[in-house]
Amino acid sequence: MEKLSSMETDFSQWYQDVIFKSELVDLSPTKGCFVIRPYGYALWENIKNILDQKISLTGTENAYFPLLIPESFLKKEEKHIEGFSPELAVVTHAGGQELEEPLIVRPTSETMIYYMFARWIKSWRDLPLKINQWANVIRWEMRPRAFLRSIEFLWQEGHTAHITQEQAIQMAKIALDIYKDILENYLAIPVISGIKSESEKFAGAHCTYTLEGMMQNGKALQMCTSHVLNHSFSQSFDIKFQDEDGEVKSPYCSSWGMTTRVLGALIMVHGDQNGLIIPPKIAPIKAVIIPIYKNDDERDLVLSVANNLKEELCEKDFIVVIDRDENKTPGSKFFQWELKGVPVRIEIGPRDIEKKQAVLVSRIKSDIIQKKKFVTIDNIKKDLNQLLETIQNELFQKARGNLSSKWNQAYKLEDFGPILYEENGFYQAGWCCSKKCEHKLKGYRASIRCILDSKNNKTCFYCGQSSRNDVLIAKAY
Amino acid sequence: MEKLSSMETDFSQWYQDVIFKSELVDLSPTKGCFVIRPYGYALWENIKNILDQKISLTGTENAYFPLLIPESFLKKEEKHIEGFSPELAVVTHAGGQELEEPLIVRPTSETMIYYMFARWIKSWRDLPLKINQWANVIRWEMRPRAFLRSIEFLWQEGHTAHITQEQAIQMAKIALDIYKDILENYLAIPVISGIKSESEKFAGAHCTYTLEGMMQNGKALQMCTSHVLNHSFSQSFDIKFQDEDGEVKSPYCSSWGMTTRVLGALIMVHGDQNGLIIPPKIAPIKAVIIPIYKNDDERDLVLSVANNLKEELCEKDFIVVIDRDENKTPGSKFFQWELKGVPVRIEIGPRDIEKKQAVLVSRIKSDIIQKKKFVTIDNIKKDLNQLLETIQNELFQKARGNLSSKWNQAYKLEDFGPILYEENGFYQAGWCCSKKCEHKLKGYRASIRCILDSKNNKTCFYCGQSSRNDVLIAKAY
Repeated sequence: MEKLSSMETDFSQWYQDVIFKSELVDLSPTKGCFVIRPYGYALWENIKNILDQKISLTGTENAYFPLLIPESFLKKEEKHIEGFSPELAVVTHAGGQELEEPLIVRPTSETMIYYMFARWIKSWRDLPLKINQWANVIRWEMRPRAFLRSIEFLWQEGHTAHITQEQAIQMAKIALDIYKDILENYLAIPVISGIKSESEKFAGAHCTYTLEGMMQNGKALQMCTSHVLNHSFSQSFDIKFQDEDGEVKSPYCSSWGMTTRVLGALIMVHGDQNGLIIPPKIAPIKAVIIPIYKNDDERDLVLSVANNLKEELCEKDFIVVIDRDENKTPGSKFFQWELKGVPVRIEIGPRDIEKKQAVLVSRIKSDIIQKKKFVTIDNIKKDLNQLLETIQNELFQKARGNLSSKWNQAYKLEDFGPILYEENGFYQAGWCCSKKCEHKLKGYRASIRCILDSKNNKTCFYCGQSSRNDVLIAKAY
Repeated sequence: MEKLSSMETDFSQWYQDVIFKSELVDLSPTKGCFVIRPYGYALWENIKNILDQKISLTGTENAYFPLLIPESFLKKEEKHIEGFSPELAVVTHAGGQELEEPLIVRPTSETMIYYMFARWIKSWRDLPLKINQWANVIRWEMRPRAFLRSIEFLWQEGHTAHITQEQAIQMAKIALDIYKDILENYLAIPVISGIKSESEKFAGAHCTYTLEGMMQNGKALQMCTSHVLNHSFSQSFDIKFQDEDGEVKSPYCSSWGMTTRVLGALIMVHGDQNGLIIPPKIAPIKAVIIPIYKNDDERDLVLSVANNLKEELCEKDFIVVIDRDENKTPGSKFFQWELKGVPVRIEIGPRDIEKKQAVLVSRIKSDIIQKKKFVTIDNIKKDLNQLLETIQNELFQKARGNLSSKWNQAYKLEDFGPILYEENGFYQAGWCCSKKCEHKLKGYRASIRCILDSKNNKTCFYCGQSSRNDVLIAKAY
């Protein structure tokens, strides 16, 4: 097994090495599309299950809408088609014939779903209407990267309609809160919430909320967004309801999504030179037992204890495996499971059994986690759970440390631009709200990731005119 | 609310009425594609969750493969492309350009998955390899019908590779057993298992196993299939492994799938003139509480008791709802929930509360189920569970009764053909195994649904030559 490329000198190649060698994904014969292998898919399913439950608690119901959307539908909302047209995949032939109207493979489902909303919404009694879809979508990326920018990706898309704008805004905020909860408390990724600038917002949205994450190489990654759509789609698709007062009105809409892209973030936030590091709460395998023995007698003994241990530890969503491979040394097994980011390795040999103990080896070291810990077998369940909890917390703390260490206060672009260009990181500065100044960031390959609540800065980073809110500037994926 | 069309005189229109009015599906703006609405999707999710668990117990792992497949891939297996080419949807343009090679929206994923298997399988140690995918697929149907023949449908597709043919056959049989278990013990649909004739088998398969169901109108419906693929795909995709004996060999493959089509079966097997009937084990809503009151005081009392009842009855996957709609009479609520096939309705009014009782009303009547039953509130959980269990069993018995009543022993096509043409049903007859005789069934719009194990008949239904196995003949969806 060759080593991974260096994170320090070639982060991008390190990322590729990790995702392919840990068997999260593989290249497919369809250019720009990736296969999500069982280990990667199990990770996605774990996140999906938690997110699905939280979405359902908001009274949102799952449904399924067609993959193929008539081309004319995307054109109904002018800004929407402007934003998406370079990314579309088009079905022109089907059933052995050329189609009368081309069909678009959905890049997102606003047009399809709001068309259906117009059929379903008649009265204020039908509102709010909250629908979620788990689906695959296609956006033709010119430079595809697995998880981050793949041509096909998996996601959920929530779409809701409300009587008032306030309710639509509230829904978009609730969705963002759910995403923040999942990212911080399950994926152990700290995020910054803010609002997208006009030029970065979703095509067709009135306002886009975003969660931005900070990778270990100092680049920002947009994690999840939620949009207040207001009347844009409800007017182009003629959604109308009779309100309690008898008047006919348009509902206010929201939409919001989380995608397989968060898996890319997970890798870039937590991974190290040995490979993946998966936060325990979402790890497909919580611990791997490595039996250590020198001869057949020892093997029988160790495997029988290992089996009992596995039986005791495994529960429905708590998977523990034994690596029984006879053709590998314990050392190469350690290497393999570290690469896969399994949070804890349990080593057990004849001497351990004699002493009624086992060794818990954490995937990470920190001030409060020793790498190796001897525990008594009788107490192992409790000790393992405690260690997993500590690892989960430490991963979040470490990621938070990385985020703050890369967060810079900045004033004038001519000063911080060249630094940003070389060193990455977040740069908090003032902004006058003009596109002209925003555009100057392109010279440093950077952009406004989000508009913050805070108002530390009085003047714009470029023109020096007065600033309303601070913005967070970074190079981003 | 208008009535449903008559099942007796227009079964096909009755089916349409039921699926749309019960809000399982809706028409979409994409011709031949349907929206699966929340109620229909919840039903599919319930089936999916059970099936997913059972598949996982066979050591099969979920993964995800690209939606779009290079056209040349489908052409690699000659019979496969022959079978599928009239049904394909083709992406010719993407990212604003014409593609060098058109991409096919997957009609099934053998070609994609076996290409990947060739990358993953090197040694006998890599076998068996068992992968399952939950996905959407597209097959361009000329006469689409929701669930039964929709252009896009949802399914799982299992794909496995094995060292020996025996193992591949065993896997295909295990998959069929799982499907039979789900259909009979959860969907309460009795099925007949058999083997497809050469002309009805999967394009590219060595042998196709099938489960056939009998609808209330006497038409057969193919429920699920599993295929022994042998070397067809492993040779066209060059999958090779080094066996324990050092020799390089091709693995034997199997594939198998269950689709949203089973929802169509569910409706046509159990439904009645009042609408859907959903077997309790997979019902998204197990029971609906209808509060009955005449004035505000009564309403407050009844709703508070109803609330407590709901709290007591609801559990994670056991959903009970209260219909609080102030604008509907209890009668119109009864009608609505019967249409939706909720297994049990709980009626509760002030007089019931006085007597500490409630009324359980079953969606079906039978020899052992009275339509209405008074139960004490203290005991309601137990009584409700018992009633649900009885309903589940009775539905299966009733469907089994329908199946046997429509099962006919048949001899010569000239005799039973005209009857079959008029009356539908299964016709068990002998067959000489020739395509020529099989083809004669087309004159009666019928086909061989499957080859049975039994050998009751000595001669073929058409030519009179000697018969090997009996076949089941029917008109089918």
